Amino acid sequence: MKRGAARRPIRKRGEDPAHSVFTLGEVAGAVGGTVLGDPHLRLSGLQSLNRAGPSDLSWVADEHRVREAARSAAGALLVSKAEHSGGRPAIVAANATAALAVWLTRWAQPAKPKPGVARGAFVHRGAKLSKGVSIAAGATVSAGARVGARSVLWPGAFLGESAEVGEDCLLAPHAALLAHCRIGNRCILYAGAVVGSDGFGYVWDGERHRKIPQIGIVVLQDDVEVGANSTIDRATLGETVIRRGTKIDNLVMIAHNVEVGEHSIVCAQVGVAGSTRIGSGVTLAGQVGISDHVVIGDRAVLTGQAGIVRGGVVAAGAVVSGMPAAPHRDFLRSAALLQRLPELARRFDALEKRVEALAKGGGPWSSESSKS
Amino acid sequence: MKRGAARRPIRKRGEDPAHSVFTLGEVAGAVGGTVLGDPHLRLSGLQSLNRAGPSDLSWVADEHRVREAARSAAGALLVSKAEHSGGRPAIVAANATAALAVWLTRWAQPAKPKPGVARGAFVHRGAKLSKGVSIAAGATVSAGARVGARSVLWPGAFLGESAEVGEDCLLAPHAALLAHCRIGNRCILYAGAVVGSDGFGYVWDGERHRKIPQIGIVVLQDDVEVGANSTIDRATLGETVIRRGTKIDNLVMIAHNVEVGEHSIVCAQVGVAGSTRIGSGVTLAGQVGISDHVVIGDRAVLTGQAGIVRGGVVAAGAVVSGMPAAPHRDFLRSAALLQRLPELARRFDALEKRVEALAKGGGPWSSESSKS
Amino acid sequence: MKRGAARRPIRKRGEDPAHSVFTLGEVAGAVGGTVLGDPHLRLSGLQSLNRAGPSDLSWVADEHRVREAARSAAGALLVSKAEHSGGRPAIVAANATAALAVWLTRWAQPAKPKPGVARGAFVHRGAKLSKGVSIAAGATVSAGARVGARSVLWPGAFLGESAEVGEDCLLAPHAALLAHCRIGNRCILYAGAVVGSDGFGYVWDGERHRKIPQIGIVVLQDDVEVGANSTIDRATLGETVIRRGTKIDNLVMIAHNVEVGEHSIVCAQVGVAGSTRIGSGVTLAGQVGISDHVVIGDRAVLTGQAGIVRGGVVAAGAVVSGMPAAPHRDFLRSAALLQRLPELARRFDALEKRVEALAKGGGPWSSESSKS
Repeated sequence: MKRGAARRPIRKRGEDPAHSVFTLGEVAGAVGGTVLGDPHLRLSGLQSLNRAGPSDLSWVADEHRVREAARSAAGALLVSKAEHSGGRPAIVAANATAALAVWLTRWAQPAKPKPGVARGAFVHRGAKLSKGVSIAAGATVSAGARVGARSVLWPGAFLGESAEVGEDCLLAPHAALLAHCRIGNRCILYAGAVVGSDGFGYVWDGERHRKIPQIGIVVLQDDVEVGANSTIDRATLGETVIRRGTKIDNLVMIAHNVEVGEHSIVCAQVGVAGSTRIGSGVTLAGQVGISDHVVIGDRAVLTGQAGIVRGGVVAAGAVVSGMPAAPHRDFLRSAALLQRLPELARRFDALEKRVEALAKGGGPWSSESSKS
Repeated sequence: MKRGAARRPIRKRGEDPAHSVFTLGEVAGAVGGTVLGDPHLRLSGLQSLNRAGPSDLSWVADEHRVREAARSAAGALLVSKAEHSGGRPAIVAANATAALAVWLTRWAQPAKPKPGVARGAFVHRGAKLSKGVSIAAGATVSAGARVGARSVLWPGAFLGESAEVGEDCLLAPHAALLAHCRIGNRCILYAGAVVGSDGFGYVWDGERHRKIPQIGIVVLQDDVEVGANSTIDRATLGETVIRRGTKIDNLVMIAHNVEVGEHSIVCAQVGVAGSTRIGSGVTLAGQVGISDHVVIGDRAVLTGQAGIVRGGVVAAGAVVSGMPAAPHRDFLRSAALLQRLPELARRFDALEKRVEALAKGGGPWSSESSKS
Repeated sequence: MKRGAARRPIRKRGEDPAHSVFTLGEVAGAVGGTVLGDPHLRLSGLQSLNRAGPSDLSWVADEHRVREAARSAAGALLVSKAEHSGGRPAIVAANATAALAVWLTRWAQPAKPKPGVARGAFVHRGAKLSKGVSIAAGATVSAGARVGARSVLWPGAFLGESAEVGEDCLLAPHAALLAHCRIGNRCILYAGAVVGSDGFGYVWDGERHRKIPQIGIVVLQDDVEVGANSTIDRATLGETVIRRGTKIDNLVMIAHNVEVGEHSIVCAQVGVAGSTRIGSGVTLAGQVGISDHVVIGDRAVLTGQAGIVRGGVVAAGAVVSGMPAAPHRDFLRSAALLQRLPELARRFDALEKRVEALAKGGGPWSSESSKS
C-alpha cells in the first residue's frame, strides 16, 4: 500500500477560493470596470443568476438575461450596461462575460500541483524537463520528449518518444501526445484526449486492407485546447496542423492531414475527415460532419449536425446548415416547407383532379373544394 | 519487473459462473416465477436463443421471439407467458427480461477485486477510504477525495482533489472523476469516462478566445451509470446534474450546466449542449444532438439522430424525429414524401404545362398524359 | 523520482528513418515496380506532393493528382502509370498507393520497444506472456490473461482477467481489453480504445432501470484495428464479433451483440446499435448511425451521416444516404429538390390561383405570370 504519492494541492481547505472574500471595488479594479454602489461591499461567492444569494456576485451576459437578473437574489452584478443592473450594486464593464472571465481567472485559479517529478512517474532519462515542470505519479515522459517550463502532466498523461510540449501547458489525466508530435505554449489537452494516433489510411491490395504507415505528426500551435476524449490523428506524411488560439471541445475527431486555422471553435462531436482545410475564425457547431478534401473559408459557420460532402467548398463568412449543407436561410425555408409537404401533396392531388375535370369541360368549383 | 500487483480474482477457474450448474427450480425461486416441467432439471449455461444448447437456459423477450424460440436448442426458457414456451421446460415470470436480469445478477456476478489498496496505487494521505474499498494498482485518489464503502477503483481510475464517491460504486479502468465532483451510491463510470472536465466556455476579447474558468462541479445522483469514453463537463458556476437512476451509454457528451432528470436513458453518441434541461423518464436515442438552452419535457422520446435547435422546447411525452425535429408521425410522412419529391416535381411540371395549354384554349387531354 | 522506466527506442537518433538515404532502385525492388530514370538516384525523405523537395520521393495517387504532381518539387515519384510521372524520375507500380504502403512499412517501421516487462508494469503472476512480448510501465495484465508472441502493451494499456491477445498485436496507451475478451493476431487497439465494456442493457422493473448483467464477450479476429477512443461493448450473452481484416476508425461505437463481417471499413464516429449484423466489405462513412436489429448486406456503402432505422435492411452492394436512408441517387435527387422546394411552393401557389381563375372562366394569361 503506497499512500502519499498523488498530487499535492497548492491551497489548504480554508483557502478555498469559493470562500475567499472580496469587494466590489477589487473586482472593478481587476476587470477595468466602474462600480455602481458601494465599492466596499463584501462578497464571498460567484454564482449564476438563479443560484446566487446575497453574498454572491453574478453576471448579466446580455439583455436577454435582464428579466432573470431582476428575480435573482444576487448581492451584486457584473453588467455590460448600467441599466442591466436594475438598481442593484454592480460593476459596469464593456463586456460582462469577458469581465467574468478575467475575475474568475484571478479569483479562482484552479489548483496546480507543485513542481517536480512525483514518485511513480515514468520519466525516461533521455527526456528534457524545463524549470517548474510537474509530472504526476503514473504519467509517462518517453525518450527524447521535451516539456517546457511550468507545464503540468497529471496522472496517466503520456508523452511519446520525442514529443514536444511548450511552456505553461496542461495535460490532464490520460491525455496522450504521441511520438514526435508537438504542442505550443499554453495548450491544454483535457482528460483522455489523444493527439497523434495513426491516421486511418489503408489501401486495398486485392486481398486485404493494407495499412499505410502514418509517419507524419500533429502540430498544435500556441493556445490550442483539445477537449476530453477528442482525437487528432497524425498525418500520413507531413503534418496535421491546428493553428493558434483554436479551441476544440470534447469527443471531436480531426483526421490526418487536416489543417484548422487560427481562433476557430470546434464544438463537441464534430468530425473532420482527411486533408480538409478549415479557415480561421470558423465555428463548427456540435456534431458537424465534414468529409475529406473539403475547404471551409474563414469565419464560416456550420450549424449543428450540418454535413459537407467530399470535396465541398464553404465560402468565407457563409452560414450553412443541413445535410447536404445549404445556406442557412434556404435550409430554414426548405425545412419549413418539408414539414408542410404532406399538406402540399394533398393540395397538389386535388389540383391535379381539378385540372383534369376542367380539361374535360367541367364547370367551375368553389375554391374551397380544391383545398380539402 | 514487478509481477503480482494486478487485481486478484475472487473466484477460481473451477468456480467460473459460466460453468456452475443450477436447476430450473432455483431460477424460479430467485425470479419469483412458476416452473413448467421438472424443477430439478439441471442446466449449466445461459445463452441467447440462437446459441443455446440443451444444457442452456435462454429467454423469450416477447412474442416477436416465439418463432425463434421454437427453433432454439435451448434446454429451458424464461418466458413472460406460458404459451411462449412451446411446450418446453420453462419458467413463467411477469417480465422475462426482468427475470433474466435478476437471475444473471445472482448467478453471474462479475468478479470483484479484494478490498484493500494495491501496491502501485497512488492514494494521497489526505484521502478518506471507507470500509471494503478496493483501489487497484495505477489508480489515483487525490488529496481530500473520499471513497464510500465497498467502492472499487480499477487500474488507471482517477479521483481528483476532493472528489467524492458514494458506496458500492465502480470506476472502470481510466475512468476519471475530476476535482470536487461527486457521485452518489451504486454509480458506475465505465472505462475512460470523464466526469468533470472543464466546460467549453470562452469569450472573445477582441483578440482571442479567452477561457472562462469553469469553477462549478458535476453531481451524479445515486444509480447513475456513465458509458465508456463519455464525457460530462463541470458547470461554469454551480452544478451539472444527472439525477438518480439515469443511464448514459458510451461516447455521450453532456456539456456544462446541463441538468438531466431521473431514470432517463441517453444512448450512445448523444450530445447535449450547455444549460439544456432534460426531464425524467426521457429517452434520447443514438446520435441525438441537442443545442444549448433547450428544454426537454418528461417522458419525451427523441429518435436516432434527431436534432433540437437552440432554445427549442420538446413537450412532455412528445416523440420527435429529424433535424430540425418534428413530431415523429409528421417526420415519417415528410420523409416518405421527400422520397417521392422527384415524382411530384415531374407531375407538377406536367400539370403546369397542361394548365398553360388549357388556358390557351387547348382541348382536353387524356388523363394519362399529365402523369408521364 | 524514478527516471528511466519509460520505453526505450529501438533506433538511435542518427538512424531516424526520416533521414536514412535510399535509392530509386531500392524502392523499385521493394515494391516490385519499374524504374523510369536513374535507379541510383539517392533520396532521403518521403513527402506529400505539396511538401516534397528535390531529395524527397512523393506519390501520385491517381490521375486527379497529375496536375499537382507537375507543380511538385519532388525529386522522384511513385506512379501507377508512366504518363503520371511527367518525365520525372519515377517508379511505376500497379497501384502507387499500395506501393507507398509497402515502401513505408519497410523504410519507416515505427519504433517498437524492447521485449520484456518494464519496471512499473503490473503483471499478475497468473498471466501468461509469450516470447518477445513487451509490457510498458503503467500497463496492466490481469490474472489469467494471455499475451501472444511479440505483442506490445504501451503505458496504461489494460488487459482484464483472462483476456487474450494474439501475436504481433499492439495496445497503445490506455487501450483496454476487458475481462475474458479476445483479439486475434496482428490486431491494433489505438490509444484509449475500450473493447469489452458492458453492453447498454437495462430493463424497467416498474421503479427503475435494472441493469442486465452483460456476461458475453467481444471477439476481434485477426488483423482488426480499433481507432483511438472507440468503444466495442461485450455481448449480453454470447459474443460481439468483428471479423478478420475489418478496420475501425476513432470514436466509433459498436454495441453489444453486433457482428461485423470481414474487411469492412468503419469510419470515425459511426454508431452501431445492439444486435445489428453488418456484412463483409461494407463501408460505413463518418457519423453513420445504425439502429438495432438492422442487417447490412455485403459490400454495401453508407455515406456520411446516413441513418438506418430499427430493423432496417440494406441490400448487398447498395449505396444509401440520408436519414432515413434511401438509395444514394434518390437521395441526391430529393436533396436537390428539397433545396428547390421554396421555388416549387411558389409556383404551386401561382398555379393553384391560375386554375381557380380558369375554372371561373377567366381568359388566358401569359405563361410568365404564373411563375412570378
